[in-house]
Amino acid sequence: MGKNRLEAFSDGVLAIILTIMVLELKVPHGDRLDALLPLLPTFLSYVLSFIYIGIYWNNHHHMLHAATRVSGGALWANLHLLFWLSLLPFVTGWMGENHFAPLPTALYGGVLLMAGSAYWILAHRLVAGEGPDSLLARAIGKDRKGMMSVAVYAVAIPLAFVEEWLAQALYVAVALIWLVPDTRIERHLTAAE
Amino acid sequence: MGKNRLEAFSDGVLAIILTIMVLELKVPHGDRLDALLPLLPTFLSYVLSFIYIGIYWNNHHHMLHAATRVSGGALWANLHLLFWLSLLPFVTGWMGENHFAPLPTALYGGVLLMAGSAYWILAHRLVAGEGPDSLLARAIGKDRKGMMSVAVYAVAIPLAFVEEWLAQALYVAVALIWLVPDTRIERHLTAAE
Amino acid sequence: MGKNRLEAFSDGVLAIILTIMVLELKVPHGDRLDALLPLLPTFLSYVLSFIYIGIYWNNHHHMLHAATRVSGGALWANLHLLFWLSLLPFVTGWMGENHFAPLPTALYGGVLLMAGSAYWILAHRLVAGEGPDSLLARAIGKDRKGMMSVAVYAVAIPLAFVEEWLAQALYVAVALIWLVPDTRIERHLTAAE
Amino acid sequence: MGKNRLEAFSDGVLAIILTIMVLELKVPHGDRLDALLPLLPTFLSYVLSFIYIGIYWNNHHHMLHAATRVSGGALWANLHLLFWLSLLPFVTGWMGENHFAPLPTALYGGVLLMAGSAYWILAHRLVAGEGPDSLLARAIGKDRKGMMSVAVYAVAIPLAFVEEWLAQALYVAVALIWLVPDTRIERHLTAAE
Repeated sequence: MGKNRLEAFSDGVLAIILTIMVLELKVPHGDRLDALLPLLPTFLSYVLSFIYIGIYWNNHHHMLHAATRVSGGALWANLHLLFWLSLLPFVTGWMGENHFAPLPTALYGGVLLMAGSAYWILAHRLVAGEGPDSLLARAIGKDRKGMMSVAVYAVAIPLAFVEEWLAQALYVAVALIWLVPDTRIERHLTAAE
Repeated sequence: MGKNRLEAFSDGVLAIILTIMVLELKVPHGDRLDALLPLLPTFLSYVLSFIYIGIYWNNHHHMLHAATRVSGGALWANLHLLFWLSLLPFVTGWMGENHFAPLPTALYGGVLLMAGSAYWILAHRLVAGEGPDSLLARAIGKDRKGMMSVAVYAVAIPLAFVEEWLAQALYVAVALIWLVPDTRIERHLTAAE
Repeated sequence: MGKNRLEAFSDGVLAIILTIMVLELKVPHGDRLDALLPLLPTFLSYVLSFIYIGIYWNNHHHMLHAATRVSGGALWANLHLLFWLSLLPFVTGWMGENHFAPLPTALYGGVLLMAGSAYWILAHRLVAGEGPDSLLARAIGKDRKGMMSVAVYAVAIPLAFVEEWLAQALYVAVALIWLVPDTRIERHLTAAE
Repeated sequence: MGKNRLEAFSDGVLAIILTIMVLELKVPHGDRLDALLPLLPTFLSYVLSFIYIGIYWNNHHHMLHAATRVSGGALWANLHLLFWLSLLPFVTGWMGENHFAPLPTALYGGVLLMAGSAYWILAHRLVAGEGPDSLLARAIGKDRKGMMSVAVYAVAIPLAFVEEWLAQALYVAVALIWLVPDTRIERHLTAAE
């Protein structure tokens, strides 16, 4: 099964998710600063989600670059990942409109948690198809960063009901950790070439 | 006629259909659980439609992988399929907002019925271009699963007016049958290689 | 300049135009037939525009298949065509919501007229890059069908203010003429191979 | 790292930005000219933004055509550019609905300024990966046109609060300068072949 079409379809869905999130930034009535300012929380949540989609696209790109074949199961694992990411515009909008209130903040973390888990499932599906000695298996390794991210989300969700800004800080921290480029796959690819 | 651009265009349309369906999940006013709960039927209908689009993308992907040429007639048969699938966000939203009421449930089944028939027409157009002894013809065979799905939709539509949950159960059952991977084409492709 | 990215970008824009047009079909309040019926004009105008976008995609696909190079001027001629087609969702929605009233019907024809002219400009830009003896030049020829379509739109626009259904009939007639596959390019391509 | 997927993803995002901008042209109630006329400022701002997205797509297309490799840093520089361009539908709608009032006009210029700077960063990231004697480095050169555009935006933003039409004129002037095809890269590519 060609992986090109899987990449193209995922790119399409991620590009649309990225772009329709901005539709939650509703054009305000009035042409003054006080019409614009109430949109600030929605804008900040848009920035965070934009970065998360960028991270997923970037990692997805690297992972599939290292994969050589895609099974039927991996196609569905990929759709499962896209399902959770497709809910990001909704929770982003809800969290922004409600100024990072506890429940929307927790639900945002829940979607991140499910997306992180879905990415882990996809990675393991792909590795299973490649074999334990494959380039992909060595590049992904134990995926400590991925497991740690999911663990942080699991901590942040109940925290949102105690102190919502602490949960927000954890979401931002995980994004920053991923922004630092993941050199594992690139290093293994370079070594293989 | 190159099939690559047909695949790319279909992927684009399916990716957009998948993603704009989530726009029917309108961000609620209020930051509490009782603001979120009324969205549950819309969310459930979104999950069902997401799975259906995933199934169509998956099968479309396999079918075109086995095809070697695409005639002008097949281009239009493909657009005909995309037309019916493009109505899925509308009927999904209507069914969800009305808590699976009889008429929206029946209309949802009607769109599934038309999409299933359009897929059948596209498959037969492609097989006609490939010849009866082609890989594609042998892989698709009599397409019992496709014909059965259309028959189930035809039963579910009148049922929606008697007992709407029975119609819903039939839509879910057909989706589950397709989720079990269709090994026919993969088996024939492997045998051919 | 590679034509692949031009094709991919055009496919993306056409796929999105096709799919966001369905967003004008607003999910009605109420779960009965009398909530659905007022949407019929919008649905009918959606069907007409869907077919037009399908025709443009189909012809664009064939034309670029026969082209071998794309100049900077042709890139802008292509964007000019996409600009007019991007207005189709707007005029489709306006015409449908106003039950095919004279002015919306005339404006719809105006957008078709501009898109048809833009297609003609793009075709001539591409032919200019290929030379008068090229495959593309012979395949497109005098483009009588394209010029005739533009002429029919020019007649239909003033007619919309006299008898709007006559203008609608002309738009449908032009669509039907194009639905009959344009065998010119396919024939020339086959002959060349 | 393959540049194909970067191109495909950027094309997808730009195609969606281009097309959802037209959603700000809300279908008016009423079927007469006086229902349509209030949309004229929104339409004009749409035309300007359409041309800007077209310019970015065109230049992006040329720049990546001349690049041979894409680093992880360039992937993020590209996402950074797409982030600012993704805000264009919002500021376009706000500027149009408020009839080119000072603050929306200034904010529109602010987004253009950030997008222009992000393009400059991306270009320099790509050149850094190619080396100072590369085809791309020679083709981009000192990028006087890009730097001048950013400088004009920086002048236009404060001007918007003095005389908004002067700021608008500057945005239009920069667009016109870019519409004149940038022959530098094409010339260098031709020379290299």
